Amino acid sequence: MTNPNTSPLRVLVWGENRHEQIEQHVRDIYPDGMHTTIAAGIRENLGDAVRVSTTTLDEPEHGLTEPVLADTDVLVWWGHAAHGEVADEVVERVHRHVLSGMGLVVLHSGHWSKIFGKLMGTTCTLRWRSEQDRELVWTVSPAHPIAQGVPHPIVIEQQEMYGEFFDIPAPDEIIFLSTFTGGEVFRSGCTFRRGHGKIFFFSPGDQDYPVYHHKDVRRVIANGVGWARSDRPERTIPTLLRYETGDFFHGHGYAGPISESGDA
Amino acid sequence: MTNPNTSPLRVLVWGENRHEQIEQHVRDIYPDGMHTTIAAGIRENLGDAVRVSTTTLDEPEHGLTEPVLADTDVLVWWGHAAHGEVADEVVERVHRHVLSGMGLVVLHSGHWSKIFGKLMGTTCTLRWRSEQDRELVWTVSPAHPIAQGVPHPIVIEQQEMYGEFFDIPAPDEIIFLSTFTGGEVFRSGCTFRRGHGKIFFFSPGDQDYPVYHHKDVRRVIANGVGWARSDRPERTIPTLLRYETGDFFHGHGYAGPISESGDA
Amino acid sequence: MTNPNTSPLRVLVWGENRHEQIEQHVRDIYPDGMHTTIAAGIRENLGDAVRVSTTTLDEPEHGLTEPVLADTDVLVWWGHAAHGEVADEVVERVHRHVLSGMGLVVLHSGHWSKIFGKLMGTTCTLRWRSEQDRELVWTVSPAHPIAQGVPHPIVIEQQEMYGEFFDIPAPDEIIFLSTFTGGEVFRSGCTFRRGHGKIFFFSPGDQDYPVYHHKDVRRVIANGVGWARSDRPERTIPTLLRYETGDFFHGHGYAGPISESGDA
Amino acid sequence: MTNPNTSPLRVLVWGENRHEQIEQHVRDIYPDGMHTTIAAGIRENLGDAVRVSTTTLDEPEHGLTEPVLADTDVLVWWGHAAHGEVADEVVERVHRHVLSGMGLVVLHSGHWSKIFGKLMGTTCTLRWRSEQDRELVWTVSPAHPIAQGVPHPIVIEQQEMYGEFFDIPAPDEIIFLSTFTGGEVFRSGCTFRRGHGKIFFFSPGDQDYPVYHHKDVRRVIANGVGWARSDRPERTIPTLLRYETGDFFHGHGYAGPISESGDA
Repeated sequence: MTNPNTSPLRVLVWGENRHEQIEQHVRDIYPDGMHTTIAAGIRENLGDAVRVSTTTLDEPEHGLTEPVLADTDVLVWWGHAAHGEVADEVVERVHRHVLSGMGLVVLHSGHWSKIFGKLMGTTCTLRWRSEQDRELVWTVSPAHPIAQGVPHPIVIEQQEMYGEFFDIPAPDEIIFLSTFTGGEVFRSGCTFRRGHGKIFFFSPGDQDYPVYHHKDVRRVIANGVGWARSDRPERTIPTLLRYETGDFFHGHGYAGPISESGDA
Repeated sequence: MTNPNTSPLRVLVWGENRHEQIEQHVRDIYPDGMHTTIAAGIRENLGDAVRVSTTTLDEPEHGLTEPVLADTDVLVWWGHAAHGEVADEVVERVHRHVLSGMGLVVLHSGHWSKIFGKLMGTTCTLRWRSEQDRELVWTVSPAHPIAQGVPHPIVIEQQEMYGEFFDIPAPDEIIFLSTFTGGEVFRSGCTFRRGHGKIFFFSPGDQDYPVYHHKDVRRVIANGVGWARSDRPERTIPTLLRYETGDFFHGHGYAGPISESGDA
Repeated sequence: MTNPNTSPLRVLVWGENRHEQIEQHVRDIYPDGMHTTIAAGIRENLGDAVRVSTTTLDEPEHGLTEPVLADTDVLVWWGHAAHGEVADEVVERVHRHVLSGMGLVVLHSGHWSKIFGKLMGTTCTLRWRSEQDRELVWTVSPAHPIAQGVPHPIVIEQQEMYGEFFDIPAPDEIIFLSTFTGGEVFRSGCTFRRGHGKIFFFSPGDQDYPVYHHKDVRRVIANGVGWARSDRPERTIPTLLRYETGDFFHGHGYAGPISESGDA
Repeated sequence: MTNPNTSPLRVLVWGENRHEQIEQHVRDIYPDGMHTTIAAGIRENLGDAVRVSTTTLDEPEHGLTEPVLADTDVLVWWGHAAHGEVADEVVERVHRHVLSGMGLVVLHSGHWSKIFGKLMGTTCTLRWRSEQDRELVWTVSPAHPIAQGVPHPIVIEQQEMYGEFFDIPAPDEIIFLSTFTGGEVFRSGCTFRRGHGKIFFFSPGDQDYPVYHHKDVRRVIANGVGWARSDRPERTIPTLLRYETGDFFHGHGYAGPISESGDA
């Protein structure tokens, strides 16, 4: 695939950063916060091809202002304990940017974030347990760019179990399936296209386990970030327009459903 | 397919019923209202196997109360000029019922309804023109139950043009593709699964044209209604539950993300 | 879904019937042969709605003559040790019938049958082990007719492990995902549409384990058989035809690629 | 998406080259042959990033020897009048390479080639007419790399009509939908993954029309070629292997279905 954009990929890692402040055991695993660890993993894998920033929930507008989003090619999202505190207005803004072409990588408990739920249209619920299951991440799309450079399976010694039924729409592509010691299964690597945007959901990772330090998990996140970048030259949102017969290239704005001219 | 439910299929046709009140030419085509015409088509095709009711926007709670929805197997939706007037609370209720197993058939300008947008997660925009194009509805899934009993193509002499790019997620199944005299194309028959529910979107139909009197359009809507009926015995919504190791059948309610017991 | 065909569903279970003749331990588990056991399970679940026959590899033309196939709504296939002995001419005939509308349910080692490989276009290889793993069959499409009436998960105490990467095209629908004691995962319940036919692949089952006596496995196979039945009134194969401008309903046979009339 | 392979993309354009020899009007449109014209379009769009060769049906082994295929990243296929003359042994070889990771771009009447039929498993039939219809190629996946750099719609003034029902499996992705003056519709740009390989089918193009000189058609073919390149470091075919419990990384060759050790 040819990528017309040769300038560095601009990535923003959004982390809730609440567990890190409240729970010592989380600070022990992630002294710099999960978002910083995730960002380091992306930088480690993509080097000069990427420019990575981070921001958190407690920043003004959660760090997701219009100028910031306009300057972001791919947004990576980790949230868990405070999904409800993300302002609806910010969620709308992020949603608009994704539909306009901003890539989105949603991690782990981000399955229950407002933004992921809005893009999926379903409950995004699942079954879970946090008992140090071993997770095995198996590749079911071996030729996919997101699956490159990691073993089959990826072995994660300690993890929170996520199990089916995971209430999402049927993914456009399933990249990974995970199993857990207890026997559960989960569609752990899924892609979705929404509007002009691309979304990658990847479930491994939890505040209670050092998963974001795992070499293969970091590689997959980096692959996902690269994949999610838009191939379109501009960020525009799909829009409803009227077209006269024979004129395919000049759309006209919507004048309303009931008008004296008879347009409907 | 075995259908465990032998009692009549309970269908509710929801119509906005605003054009009919405001525009004489719409009343001329649909003297009883579009919703009544659509309901008649379903009854005509499914007979005693179905019990069809109708309701409209201007009823209390838009006619979509909890008891009404609980007593509805499949909801058929036609809206156009007043999508914004549908109360968010009612949209949430309908959404919950669809995810719990209520079937949904969305028609024509319903593409821009709040409920369809909520289930899709995209803008659901498209291109359009109302200039009496002839629409040809071609079957691309000839073995699908929704496609049975209609010609290939269905010929609709006068129709509003809907054209791509139709901003929806890639449908689970594409049943029909339509073309218009002007040359445009549209994914006119699409199915989606969301939660425990099934959704069929069918674009032909407009308040300015007698499309809902068309024999083949009525057949497809009836097929879609039959297809959308749930095969599950109860209406339940997917729920997040915790499961102990080795106990697959007894889920526990969510106690919150940060608790003293260490559950996450 | 309305099923226009109220006469009994005509099912034919094809079994290789070689293991049963050669290996005592297989005869011990399946005294009447696997095909007979599978047939009994279908009859047990569908009763008078179905008429089930069986046939085997060693019958003339493997029991799959033109009249037999024309009289079969759904063919169920179990093969393992002698895939190569199925005559190509018979495979072509079965293939033609599937594309024309005959349903096909492929079980377990049938993944490597000529007919399944022909319909998939891939190697259909996988990873495996026969060490009495426990298999858990999880439902990932809970509203699907094939998934009705079985627990989540189905527990099969002893089974042969099948693991990813299973080289098949991305299924049209994934109904089940299985996990094994050793940690492997497999897309164990998949549907595909080919031509006018429907195919259900279901992996649980092996000659060395009593899986086809398992109540839930028998239920799923019966569900799959019901689902695979065609909704079309006649069995016809998709055909290449030429259509004059404006005449959508009368196709003309292909006269060859290079002719004096200029047709191409 | 990061492409690990920085050396030139090695493309081979296979053309039947029979029409060019027999029909003057084809020679008039394509003096150098269709294959050469297609190759020129790829070179024009991808420049130094690509190395393009051509070969034809009448070469020994149709130019598709083992060394040639091993040295080809993406094979582009145009055939029409002589599909039956392609040797089965060569088709098997090409099939094996595609499943191992060689990309394949199939053009127009190549829908009926042995190799495309083998990968699809269906009849690949369609409806057609050669009456100088205008074709409009509409994009339904605007964020897809294959869709970049061309107008919506692409206008092709004179073309052979291809219409639905196109008997292929549901594509993994639909990139383009085409309409024709006569009103027909066709899924004209489709992607499929088979084994480790990627396939792009693009229907515009015919020996009787100058379509392969069309700027936008040449751009799409170049985009498709870039997309079809493998991201895997080596060309290997999916293989059936046995894995001992707990050893995920060392597979053992298949010893046969019935053996004294009890392996099955």
